[in-house]
Amino acid sequence: MALLPRGPFLYAILDVDRLGERAPGPSAEALARGGAAIVQLRAKGVSDRRLYSLAEETRDGARRGGALFVVNDRPDVALMLGADGVHLGQDDLPPSAARRLLGPEVIVGFSTHSLDQLELSLRLPIDYVAVGPVYRTATKTDAEPVVGLDLVRRARALADRPLVAIGGIDRQRAPEVAAAGADGLAVIAALMDEPDLESAARAFVSGMRS
Amino acid sequence: MALLPRGPFLYAILDVDRLGERAPGPSAEALARGGAAIVQLRAKGVSDRRLYSLAEETRDGARRGGALFVVNDRPDVALMLGADGVHLGQDDLPPSAARRLLGPEVIVGFSTHSLDQLELSLRLPIDYVAVGPVYRTATKTDAEPVVGLDLVRRARALADRPLVAIGGIDRQRAPEVAAAGADGLAVIAALMDEPDLESAARAFVSGMRS
Repeated sequence: MALLPRGPFLYAILDVDRLGERAPGPSAEALARGGAAIVQLRAKGVSDRRLYSLAEETRDGARRGGALFVVNDRPDVALMLGADGVHLGQDDLPPSAARRLLGPEVIVGFSTHSLDQLELSLRLPIDYVAVGPVYRTATKTDAEPVVGLDLVRRARALADRPLVAIGGIDRQRAPEVAAAGADGLAVIAALMDEPDLESAARAFVSGMRS
Repeated sequence: MALLPRGPFLYAILDVDRLGERAPGPSAEALARGGAAIVQLRAKGVSDRRLYSLAEETRDGARRGGALFVVNDRPDVALMLGADGVHLGQDDLPPSAARRLLGPEVIVGFSTHSLDQLELSLRLPIDYVAVGPVYRTATKTDAEPVVGLDLVRRARALADRPLVAIGGIDRQRAPEVAAAGADGLAVIAALMDEPDLESAARAFVSGMRS
């Protein structure tokens, strides 16, 4: 399995819909310099050609800043661009097929939204399991029901691998999510909605560890 | 480069939106038994997980019937399922990146819609180049302007590799498209809209060669 950072760590999701006028490369670099251990590119609804160039820029920015780069949804893009990992949802390509394609060194992460999904996921060849949404979130309009800190605690008790919590996590809530057992805190809006991504990431990381 | 059939050949596109109640596996097999040399799966707007299972069924059906199996758009799905090829459009992942990922044996096809695009495509590591839409088509609502038989003839004069014509080709028009120099005739509606796919493919192939 691929090497993940030790928790608690910031898993920043660079959502193209929330970039506004900002370029993806410098934005990824800012998130990384602010302390994000992983930068994931999320770009829904763009053409694959556009996704490819966004991913290239995000990868280069994340690396300049010293973070790992993960592609959402797409094993082919991850492979083509030498990404550090791919994140898959329940409706994406099967994690076991992605693992065969990507080999043992590339991080494969997988989203779960219930105790049942979490338990099933622990039989899969994945490097980390994500649980959420922990809180109510405005990012995903088709979001699953809120699972709360309770599922994070239960997941921590069951999971034999790194746990990433996602969904509505902001600076104020970060300590209780880490205390519930999450290794990685995945954050979209609480970072992307700030004008200065590096400061936002730095403030988040410092709060998370306090 | 991967081996393509000798022309003229039928390149059947199994469009999931036009399957109705029919299952993809037996439908692909019927198209292949009717004489399609290639069966391509086209499944827009479904989840990747669904695409994966549709592709698995289509692959198995195409192989049972003796046809090559090509996946539209997605190099990862093609690799995961051991497909014979992938077909890429202008807005899909770059053909050169797909070639590096897929290696020399997997067919990579690429769509072009103008003489400029065709000329650029001949520098790419692709196994066949598609031109179209040759005629007006109801299949793609966002279709490019009709290029006509004229572009097929020009492409034939320029292209050093197999040429696939697409767009509004039916049984009646097939002979003139082949005469214009197309090796492969890509067909969606004229097959999928028929209740008996095997008979439709057989009638198409027999007309194409007459």
